[in-house]
Amino acid sequence: MRMASKALPPALQRLVENLSMLPGIGEKTATRLALTILRWPQNRAKELGQSIIELHERIKLCSMCFTFSEDDPCSICSDHKRDHSLICIIEDPGDIVAIEKAGVFNGLYHVLHGALSPMDGIGPQELKINELLIRIDNGKKQGTPIKEIIIATSSTAQGEATASYLSDLLTNKGVKVSRIACGIPIGMDIKYADPMTLKQAISARNLL
Amino acid sequence: MRMASKALPPALQRLVENLSMLPGIGEKTATRLALTILRWPQNRAKELGQSIIELHERIKLCSMCFTFSEDDPCSICSDHKRDHSLICIIEDPGDIVAIEKAGVFNGLYHVLHGALSPMDGIGPQELKINELLIRIDNGKKQGTPIKEIIIATSSTAQGEATASYLSDLLTNKGVKVSRIACGIPIGMDIKYADPMTLKQAISARNLL
Repeated sequence: MRMASKALPPALQRLVENLSMLPGIGEKTATRLALTILRWPQNRAKELGQSIIELHERIKLCSMCFTFSEDDPCSICSDHKRDHSLICIIEDPGDIVAIEKAGVFNGLYHVLHGALSPMDGIGPQELKINELLIRIDNGKKQGTPIKEIIIATSSTAQGEATASYLSDLLTNKGVKVSRIACGIPIGMDIKYADPMTLKQAISARNLL
Repeated sequence: MRMASKALPPALQRLVENLSMLPGIGEKTATRLALTILRWPQNRAKELGQSIIELHERIKLCSMCFTFSEDDPCSICSDHKRDHSLICIIEDPGDIVAIEKAGVFNGLYHVLHGALSPMDGIGPQELKINELLIRIDNGKKQGTPIKEIIIATSSTAQGEATASYLSDLLTNKGVKVSRIACGIPIGMDIKYADPMTLKQAISARNLL
């Protein structure tokens, strides 16, 4: 009996295997995507391939906030219209997109590149936490002190542990530290809220 | 207020836009995939990009069966251990993978590259149907006639219309024409079968 793999030409099989390494993409989806790319005009496929190759060549980490950026410092850190005394701590560069879309934050960011997770071997040394302390010290020395830090790590177990660790670490640093609020998402019907969120929303209720 | 798009560096934004063109991948998934690729070792990202670019350069259509192949004729059409008098008609090259996995077919294929769909402007001229007739004629002339054709188009409205069209076209060609069976999938509980499948399964019942 013939091997199933002989049914795909090697160049197609190679792309299917490479695409299968992406999160959430199994062999069937990878095959469907590869066949789609094969049906595209060649220049569109080339543009996709080039943009993947050039990604690593062009994008580095911003030496101030550690987000992904083509320039150093990044466009946000080098923007003098933003409030450089206010810093929002986030887990991933992708979180910046979400916060910028909310349109309510005009300070700078600090990307940890993860959250504390001792089970996965991720301790404070694996995150950009030392770099945060150096950034605070440098701000003081250069006469542009950081006045407030908003901890916007996720409301997962790891995110909360990270927030708690940072909160302890930042006391006595002369910086106001806050944590983003948790509760019912805007527009959500109470009856569909999960119990943990509802518990948090009731505990953190605001007096009117 | 800042534009949200400024939050992503251009090289990342470009990849997100390119990935969003793939079927089933929206902006959020594309962003997640692009950030994953950025966290990969550079050589793995380069390999993915290269494999996309080289796909079009390496893969052509087999001039006999019209599947995607690096060689012409493809590895199946040039395999003398297979039965060259038996041809299975399919809609897409991807269907070959599924049929080869079933391991019960040892003939050759003929890829139509679609199914009849007048609403989408896909008529017989848009499919490799003329090429099938030429292939049958050539087989006769060269003394290696095609004896049986199995129509394995999908059991969708378009696939059935295509099967019916081909069946009419192939009468009086001196070729035995068959259609793959439709019915309850193996291992499926009757109570979960959809009404159309069940209707077909009962109509096409086999005497024991």
